[in-house]
Amino acid sequence: MSDVWLNTLITNTPQEGFELAITLSRRGVKYTQPNPETLKALRPEYANSADGLTAASHVIAVNFQTVAAANNYWRKG
Amino acid sequence: MSDVWLNTLITNTPQEGFELAITLSRRGVKYTQPNPETLKALRPEYANSADGLTAASHVIAVNFQTVAAANNYWRKG
Amino acid sequence: MSDVWLNTLITNTPQEGFELAITLSRRGVKYTQPNPETLKALRPEYANSADGLTAASHVIAVNFQTVAAANNYWRKG
Amino acid sequence: MSDVWLNTLITNTPQEGFELAITLSRRGVKYTQPNPETLKALRPEYANSADGLTAASHVIAVNFQTVAAANNYWRKG
Amino acid sequence: MSDVWLNTLITNTPQEGFELAITLSRRGVKYTQPNPETLKALRPEYANSADGLTAASHVIAVNFQTVAAANNYWRKG
Amino acid sequence: MSDVWLNTLITNTPQEGFELAITLSRRGVKYTQPNPETLKALRPEYANSADGLTAASHVIAVNFQTVAAANNYWRKG
Repeated sequence: MSDVWLNTLITNTPQEGFELAITLSRRGVKYTQPNPETLKALRPEYANSADGLTAASHVIAVNFQTVAAANNYWRKG
Repeated sequence: MSDVWLNTLITNTPQEGFELAITLSRRGVKYTQPNPETLKALRPEYANSADGLTAASHVIAVNFQTVAAANNYWRKG
Repeated sequence: MSDVWLNTLITNTPQEGFELAITLSRRGVKYTQPNPETLKALRPEYANSADGLTAASHVIAVNFQTVAAANNYWRKG
Repeated sequence: MSDVWLNTLITNTPQEGFELAITLSRRGVKYTQPNPETLKALRPEYANSADGLTAASHVIAVNFQTVAAANNYWRKG
Repeated sequence: MSDVWLNTLITNTPQEGFELAITLSRRGVKYTQPNPETLKALRPEYANSADGLTAASHVIAVNFQTVAAANNYWRKG
Repeated sequence: MSDVWLNTLITNTPQEGFELAITLSRRGVKYTQPNPETLKALRPEYANSADGLTAASHVIAVNFQTVAAANNYWRKG
């Protein structure tokens, strides 16, 4: 992939950090399967499966650990 | 999602931190499948499956690591 | 859940910490499926399955990481 | 379980630490299924399955992270 | 494998770090199955499976934790 | 196992660290199933399965986190 999509792990709020974790999780999928048609076709397979959704939430949780650590957990002062 | 649901990872007690970890885990699911009807329909699939419940507890454990670190493990003093 | 079950992550010994990790793992299940009858009915499904037991031990290991870090690994002095 | 089996996470060598990680992994199973007959009966199910062995090695790896951190990675001096 | 493919975990940007995490994830596969023909034949099996792609993204997330920590999360100054 | 196979987590390069992570992952399997004949028989089961290879790479990633931390990520002086 030649586009620039990740310049920093720093975010203003934990919620933005969580959303960045989602972006990271999706990018991990996209690097493995870059074809957007295939990705679209596979969406119902996990978005309508309890196991698939739990697995997706798991990957987000792992990436959120990284983003949260990068932001010193958004602790104040 | 445009609503604000996560302003801080800091909680008063470890139990509140554990409950925040549950919120994070559910939000990971909701971002992936935002349709509440679909989510409701899938609930029996994991809430009545031993594997599904263990997987859910696993995601909570990963998010609890993040929340606990953010709170310095609620160590006193 | 309105009962108070988690006041601290600090334990006297690593073994008590490991047992707290088990409590956390079970609570993760219970928050997801609060019905005790359902939980009881599902028990044979994982307690008699090699995969289910390994998965349970995995969740305990993740929670034990958190508890052990909270206790500075029970290092002396 | 009333027996004392875990007094410290400190070991003399990384190899002893790895073996302690195996002990922790097995204890996680044993707390969940304390019946030794059942455990023995389940052994072939994972010890003769590639997926089961990889999953077992995964749990050991997670526990080894904890033990290694507790021992400051056995770095010298 | 005798070729040198990993000299440093340090990268200029988080995105390069994410791409290094992908390399690490693929190398983990390649060390286990070095035959390029077999690997090629297996590609459709995971690149066209929602579960397979989520699992791939999970491994990338774990390796990204390592690379991000190595780079101090690319925090400035 | 009575042989000595792990004296240190310190390696000269990240690549040697990655290869040590592979050794740790395999040892986790071997401690669980010490019979070399059985292990050999199981090899095709995971080395020819996309899911099995991803799972193997996942365990390596977890062990690499440990080895990389032990080596301070091979950051220079």
